[in-house]
Formats: sequence, structure tokens, C-alpha cells
Amino acid sequence: MKKILRVEMSNLSVRWEEAPPAYEKFGGRSLIAKIMQEEVPPHCHPLGSKNKLIFAPGLLGGTNISSSGRISIGGKSPLTGTIKESNGGGTTGAKLARLGLKAVVIEGKPAEPGCYVLKISAAGAEVVSAPELKGMGVYETARKLGDRFGARVGMALIGPAGENLLAAAGIANLDQDGNPSRYCGRGGLGAVMGAKGIKAVVVDDRGTANLPAADSAKMKSTLQEYNNMFKSPAVEAYTRYGTSAMVAHTNALGCLPTRSFTRGRFWGAEKISGETMYNLILTRGGAGRTTHSCMPGCLIRCSNVFPDEKGEVAVSPLEYETIGMFGANLEIDDLDTIARCNYLCNDLGLDTIETAVAIGLAMQAGVLPFGDRAGVLNLLPAIGRGTTVLGRVLGQGAAVTGRVLGVTNIPAVKGQALPAYDPRSLKGIGVTYATSPMGADHTAGPTARAKVDHLNPQGQVELSRRVQLNSAIYDNLGLCLFVTAAVGARPQILADLLNARYGWQWGVEDLFELSKKTILMEREFNRRAGFTPAHDRLPEFFCTEPLPETNSVFDVPQEEVEDCHNF
Amino acid sequence: MKKILRVEMSNLSVRWEEAPPAYEKFGGRSLIAKIMQEEVPPHCHPLGSKNKLIFAPGLLGGTNISSSGRISIGGKSPLTGTIKESNGGGTTGAKLARLGLKAVVIEGKPAEPGCYVLKISAAGAEVVSAPELKGMGVYETARKLGDRFGARVGMALIGPAGENLLAAAGIANLDQDGNPSRYCGRGGLGAVMGAKGIKAVVVDDRGTANLPAADSAKMKSTLQEYNNMFKSPAVEAYTRYGTSAMVAHTNALGCLPTRSFTRGRFWGAEKISGETMYNLILTRGGAGRTTHSCMPGCLIRCSNVFPDEKGEVAVSPLEYETIGMFGANLEIDDLDTIARCNYLCNDLGLDTIETAVAIGLAMQAGVLPFGDRAGVLNLLPAIGRGTTVLGRVLGQGAAVTGRVLGVTNIPAVKGQALPAYDPRSLKGIGVTYATSPMGADHTAGPTARAKVDHLNPQGQVELSRRVQLNSAIYDNLGLCLFVTAAVGARPQILADLLNARYGWQWGVEDLFELSKKTILMEREFNRRAGFTPAHDRLPEFFCTEPLPETNSVFDVPQEEVEDCHNF
Repeated sequence: MKKILRVEMSNLSVRWEEAPPAYEKFGGRSLIAKIMQEEVPPHCHPLGSKNKLIFAPGLLGGTNISSSGRISIGGKSPLTGTIKESNGGGTTGAKLARLGLKAVVIEGKPAEPGCYVLKISAAGAEVVSAPELKGMGVYETARKLGDRFGARVGMALIGPAGENLLAAAGIANLDQDGNPSRYCGRGGLGAVMGAKGIKAVVVDDRGTANLPAADSAKMKSTLQEYNNMFKSPAVEAYTRYGTSAMVAHTNALGCLPTRSFTRGRFWGAEKISGETMYNLILTRGGAGRTTHSCMPGCLIRCSNVFPDEKGEVAVSPLEYETIGMFGANLEIDDLDTIARCNYLCNDLGLDTIETAVAIGLAMQAGVLPFGDRAGVLNLLPAIGRGTTVLGRVLGQGAAVTGRVLGVTNIPAVKGQALPAYDPRSLKGIGVTYATSPMGADHTAGPTARAKVDHLNPQGQVELSRRVQLNSAIYDNLGLCLFVTAAVGARPQILADLLNARYGWQWGVEDLFELSKKTILMEREFNRRAGFTPAHDRLPEFFCTEPLPETNSVFDVPQEEVEDCHNF
Repeated sequence: MKKILRVEMSNLSVRWEEAPPAYEKFGGRSLIAKIMQEEVPPHCHPLGSKNKLIFAPGLLGGTNISSSGRISIGGKSPLTGTIKESNGGGTTGAKLARLGLKAVVIEGKPAEPGCYVLKISAAGAEVVSAPELKGMGVYETARKLGDRFGARVGMALIGPAGENLLAAAGIANLDQDGNPSRYCGRGGLGAVMGAKGIKAVVVDDRGTANLPAADSAKMKSTLQEYNNMFKSPAVEAYTRYGTSAMVAHTNALGCLPTRSFTRGRFWGAEKISGETMYNLILTRGGAGRTTHSCMPGCLIRCSNVFPDEKGEVAVSPLEYETIGMFGANLEIDDLDTIARCNYLCNDLGLDTIETAVAIGLAMQAGVLPFGDRAGVLNLLPAIGRGTTVLGRVLGQGAAVTGRVLGVTNIPAVKGQALPAYDPRSLKGIGVTYATSPMGADHTAGPTARAKVDHLNPQGQVELSRRVQLNSAIYDNLGLCLFVTAAVGARPQILADLLNARYGWQWGVEDLFELSKKTILMEREFNRRAGFTPAHDRLPEFFCTEPLPETNSVFDVPQEEVEDCHNF
């Protein structure tokens, strides 16, 4: 992993560079922060030629370490105006790493709008015109490109939403079965890709092998220890229910966003719970799978294949955030509808979180009733394809939707919608939402599983700080955050893996130092883009309007919140 | 002028207070800045209960000094998120001042949505429920309230746009003929008034008199000198053509925004010029007036009454900004259509600048063709009444419109649309747009009449600084900015008027000191609300895409721009 591939879209040229030595110890999210800070003018228009779209595997990418293949994609976000890194599973990260790439940096903009595929292989890279893909759904695009470039290639691709420059547009990655459903969903990076005229990045790693370890004996013994750690009840719960186990948990805590963030518990929670889904998958059989892995060799296998009534694939995977936001938040108590919404979002190239929160606000404004399954299903294509003005409004995300439709209680921070945890009943994640350099992100520092009183404002800043730094470690290494369930008690194992891989001598403190550096680089980019501590706060209504179930407001003192990244 | 009237909308109560001694030397814009800084949390939601809507006459308000009756209205802007002061002519300012009021501060929010009239007279003030006015146009509302409260009352009122919480909503003031067309248009203050449930503020000053001077002999002699200054060719030009003389001037400079800020000269400029309008008014006769004054005793009389083909009033006044933005910017070369648009905006309660720029972006996005007169006339009611989603989008202003419709070249600063001067060919006002604490405002510091090379980037920051400070003097005194045409060469006369009125010993430097203090208080509010020098810049495209007519970009160095308020 010593190369950087630069793609200049103004003349469709590519250039391979040696990565500067200064980049050696940066990967994934941290490398994106570094490149962004050095190369992208913080005030640039996110959809203009000065923004860059960066793909960076993590430091452990391209190895045979379980769950190490996540891909970080970054740029300046059209949703938030901040720096953005969004990472996803699937095969893109590992394949880029195996090709020796630390990063792919897509720059400039085509002189005329076009539809291009960036093809990367061991033989080289090229930008190929592919007008026939214009406006095509993600699933069909993936099939067509698979036919053309081979079934084993990796892909990162966008749907019509990204082509339409919608701020709710994400970037899909193929899983190991060629299914384009592993989303770098948040922050509207699909629109950045669309603005650059790129429909898909195809990664053909034929002829490559897993990357070698600097100390292969050490890697072998460390891996053995690492793999053993996955035999834990916490990992087993992920394998069995995946993320959907969270439905019952957040509902019990009273922090499951319901009826557009006006309630914290959903009357229909049981009908959309992880247990219900698990049993339904087993009952329906067919293509359904209660467990599934998005990347080869994963020992967690938190993913699933959700079948329809005939046993055919409805969507894969079906996960907590989507269930929470299309389910409880819209008062839809039906997994089949939620699965169909998920499939449509995937196909259109929409972030399910941003889209569902926006629809919730439209329901609050009376555009359609809560629980209106058919209404939501009808609405989604208009959003992703931008065929109606309402669709375009919703496609620009929750903050724009609320403003246009006259809803003043907008659950968004720095312009990005809150995921499926109401911060009034889960105060630690509220601190994460408020302070994350990317706007409200759950993966930036989740606290729902922490053994604390989630209603007590005390200690939440410290908790959020710790999980934010922890999350950044995973984002830097390209590891799935769920690996925490296995190795959380002994993070030194992660340093050991790096040491075996690169011949370094890192301890846990080095991992955390890189996390701090990452967050501080991101904050510095934001500062120069015009963000201040005044933006590190939740919307007013979370602090003034109690959630009925817990009668709680978000009351972590703002001066403590603003101190969160004062490392 | 020693009282402050506080109106608490949560319980519909009113309270008269003595103005604190510290407020003595603040009036109009500066008093709004002071109250905002002391009382309004900078992060509050502009449409929430913590924002305040403040009415403040200028320091010379309520006297018999020509053009001294402007009303400053302020609050936190729902359009920009910054502090906002918007001032207008008519009779509101003088009447409030004659009632002894330095300010009216409207606080809180009704528990339930309602439609109220705030009635202020020498006998007291009260909040009266007036549900029958809900959704009513501005002209009919003014007539109904005139019937109820008397033909001589003053009013500040909103239309459906403000009630619908649209960020393009302004606040209309009656002129001396009872015509509700003197707009505090910018910044969406109409929506703040709407959020507070106030349809109209009725000001009955019966039983009051012009405010006395501390030194009446000095006032008499100073006034004589002041009045003499109005006998100048510059004032005569205002009297003859009003602001519309600007059409020919900006068209010649190549800074008349045309076809949604893609050109700087309009092929149809002559058909919408001040000369054409002047001749048309004379030809049509009837109710038409080439000159007219919005407040009693004005010696400039820049206003007009534009008649339709039958000689009946089409709209009054018809002014440059509206002609430029609904005319050249939309490629409509027809004063009758522009007048009709103006009337509709007035009636609906819409800022003509924000609305027309938003429509221009919709035209750029292909929603309707440039020059589509009928299309624009059809669109306006949907905007003001928020009856379609497209209408609501446009009603939220240009920045939201561009984003929703996928136009990336959005002519707005801090979320507020640019008025009718393209900053690529008029660089001084570009500095004003970039740095004004209120977003792009022409009145904050106009430079079109300055005798400089408007294409030369050098010296523009100094020029803008000077005119921004000068404008603030007028905004603080409640004087019309056009008084500059009379007294510009001898600003000491303004200090003399203040000295005669209050018994002070001010010189010109004191006027400028108050201006500096005003701008710095505004900037401090903004800073605490999250604004930084990063927001003091024009949109990227003005700096990279030359305007064809002058082949010029905005190239005043950004570090100089950011230094503008470094007094």
C-alpha cells in the first residue's frame, strides 16, 4: 500500500504516485483528513471542481485479518459543508489495498456533464465513458458492470440520487456476493461522485494477493489470539440478530425515535424487532439468511438476507438504523415495507437515515400521514430520481425538508439528520452528535451499549470522548466497529496487528494518538470552512421539549459538550 | 423617546419600561444591535420563542426633520441565521417615536398558533385577537385595520408569506397615504413576526406631537441649513426618476444582473429604464405620479405611483431593485409585468429581491423559461401562500431554491440573495455583500455612485468600509440613505441635528464611532451564533467565472475583504 492514484476529471487522466513518506502511518479516515487538510480549500463548493473525492482503505486493509476491509470515502460534504468520511463494508477496501493503493483521489470535474466509470486494475487505471449507465439503478448498474468487467470485481457506485446531486445520496459498495448494498451512506458523498461524473469505480484485483506482514510469525500468533477473541457472547449476538437487536434495546431505553422524534418508544416495536426478523427469516426460508458476511473471512457475520413472502431476496442486509428510521420514526410496523424501502433506497442511491428522517418531517408537516406505507413507497423513486419538487426537497435531506415544509423541530446537527437514537434518552450519543466533525453520526461514537445511566447528564462527555476516539481507531485501521465486541477489552491486540503488519512498535496510546490527530485535523478543516463551537450543539428543541417516555431533555451542559475534543 | 414597550406573546401581556440610561445614545439599527446582544441567545431558533422582534425608530425619529422617520426592525434572521436589521420608510417610525418609544420588543410565542394585532397608542398597548385577518393579503388587511382603527394610524404588517414562516417574508409599513408598501423586506423578518403570531402592529399617535428639540433655536437654524442642502442636482434626479435611474447606470457598468446573474447587461434595459418609466407615467396620467413621498415632509420625494394602462394605480412605488431583479434578472422587459409582480409581492408579504433571485434560479434549473411573464405571475401566489412545494421552496429564498433545484451557482451571501448589482463588475459592493453582518445587502454599503473604477480591485475595501460606516449613520438616525445626496459633502450637519435635538456635542467622528460600534456589536452577535471570517466571502463562482460583458471576476483579495471591519 504505497501508491496513490490520482484521477483528474477535467481531462479524464490518471496518474499513479508514490505515497509521500509522511503518509505512512495514516490510513482510512485519518488519511482522508490529512489529504483534505493539505489539498482541498475549506470554502470550496462541495459540488465544484475544487472538492476531491477520496477512497482510502484502512491501515489493515488488504490483509487476511477478519473485518479489516472497510473502505473510507471522504470529501467535503454537500449536506453539512464539513469534512466528511463515511465508511462501508464489502470488498472495495480490501481490493484497493491489494492493488497497493493507499488512496484514490478523484479531482476536478468534467468540462461537460458525462457518465464515466473509473476502472482500476493491476494493469493500470482508466476513465471510461459509459453513457448507457446514466440514470440507471444501483442493482442493474452493478449487474451490467459485472457482465462487462467480470463477476469478481469490486465496485463503488452511485444511483440516480448521486447523479442528481442530492445531498442524501450515498455510495454503494459490492459485498462479497456482488450485491451493491454496503453503503457509505452519510454526508451526501454520492452527490460529490455524481458531480465528478463518476457512476462507478470498478476495482479488479485479479493477480494480486493479500498483503504480506512485515513480521509474518508475529502476525500468525497475533491473528490466532485475535481470532479466538471472536468467540464471545457479544459477537454471537451480532451473528444471530445483527444490528437489529438494537430495536428492543433502544425501545426499552425510550430512545427509539418514533413519530418524527416526538416519542421515544414505538407501539409497534415488537413487530419490527430483531427477534421478529430472525424468526421471520427462518420461517420464510428460501434465500433468507439470518447471518451473512459482507466481506470474505469475517468472523462476525452480522449481516443478513431478508426474504420476501415467497422466500426471494427482498433486501440484504436489513439493519437497525433503517428499521428504526423507516419503522418507528415513520410509525411503520411492518418489516416487509421497511425492507422494500431499504431496497429502493439502495437502488436509487439514497442514504436510508437521511431519507427517512426527511420523510418523517414531511409527515409532521402533513404531506402524508404517519404510517402511510404506500405513500412512502411511492415517494422514494421521486426522491431518488428528483422527478418532483417534493422529491428534490426530501433528497436534500432533513434540514432542507424541515425548513421548506415549515417544521421548526429539525433533528439534525450541522445539517445532517440524527440516526436512530434520541439524544434526550441517550445523552452520550447526544454529545457525539453535537461534536462529531461530520454532523450527527452514530458510528462516530455510539454509547447505547455502555453500562451507564443514559439519562444522567454527568459523565456523558467523557463517555462520548472515549467512544469517539475508539471509533476513530477502527475507522483508521479499516476495521469494522463491531470488532469492539470481540477485542474491546484488550485494544493492544489492534496495535499488535499493526506492528506485525508494518514492523512498528505501537501501543494502545499510539492508536489513540492517531485518533486524536484525526479528529483535530477534521476540526481544523471545519474551522477553516467556518465552523465554530457554536455548531457543536444539538437543536434547541432537544434541550427544551422533554421526550414523553422519559420526561427527559438533553441537559448535558453546553460548555462541557464544547470541551469534548479538548484532548 | 424614553420608553420601551415589551410585548410577551406567551401570555399576550404588555409592559412599558423606562429605557435604561445606557440606551440614550442608541437608536434604530444600533439600538437593535444592543438589545439583541444583551437579550437574545445567539444560537436560538429564529422562529422559536427565544428570538425577539424589535422595532426601533432612529435617533432623529419623530421630529420634523426631512426623511427622518424610517423604522428599523430587527431580530435573528431565519434566512441567514445572523442578526438582522431591516429598515423602511413610511410612517411607522415617526409615529412610534412620537409616542415616546425608543423600541418595541416583541418576545415569546403564543402557546397556540393565533393571529393577533398589537395596538399601540398614547392610551396604552394591547394584543388583540384578530383571527379574521389570517391569511389575508397585505392590502386588504391594511384597509380592514384602517376601517377599524382609523385612517390616520400607522401600521407594520405581514402577508401570508410571513404567516407561513417563509424566509423571504418581509414586513410592510404604511406610507403617508395609507398604502402598505414601504417594506422592511430583507432577512425574513416577516416570518419572525409570523412565528410570534402578530399579523400587524397598529400605531395610533393621535394626541401626540413632533418631539421637541433640546435647543430649539439651534434646531431651527440647523434645519434651515439642512433643508437648503436638498436643492441639489443629485436630489433633483431622485425626485424625477427615483431609484429607477439606476437601471441605465448599472447596465452601462455591466453590473445589472441579467438571466440569473449570468450576464451583466440586459438587451431589454431601455424598456425598463427610469426614463421609460418616467415617460410612461406621464403619458398614462390618471393616478400616476412621477414623484411622491413615503413620509410627511420629505424633501426628496423619490417614490412614485406607477399606473396601469387605464391610469389606475398598479403599484406604488416601483423601484430599482424590483425592476432589476424581476426585469433583467428574469429577462422580463416589460414594466407592467414587473409592476404587477411588485404588487403581488407586496400583497403576499414577500421581499421582491429574495423572491426574484429565487425565481431566477428556478429559471436556470429549467422550471420555467426566462422571460416567462405569465409563469412568474402564476408562481407568485403559490410562493407567498406556500400552496405548492415549489412555492414553499422559492419562499425560503434563493439559497434553498438553488440547493433543491440543483443549481450550484447561487448568488447569496450568508444565505441572503444578492440585490441588483453583480459584484464582478461593481467590486466595492461585492465587499459590502461579503462582509455585511446581515448577508448580501445593497443598503449596507452601496458603491455604484462612487467615482471610482469599479472593475479595479484596488481600493474597494476602503470604499466599502467607508460607505458601510456611512450607511450605518443613516440607519442609526432613522434617516433615509438618500439624504446623502443632499448632505453627503457635509456630514457635520447630521451631528448638528442630533446636538440640537438632544443637547449633545457630537462631531462627525462620533457618528462614525457609533457606526463602528453598531457593526462590531452585530459581528459579535454573529460570532457567538457561529459566524467567522470564513462566511465573509462571495460564492466561489463570482471569483472564477467571468461576467461576459466585462470579462471580470471578483478579485478583491480575500484577506483584504476580511479586514474590512478591522476598524
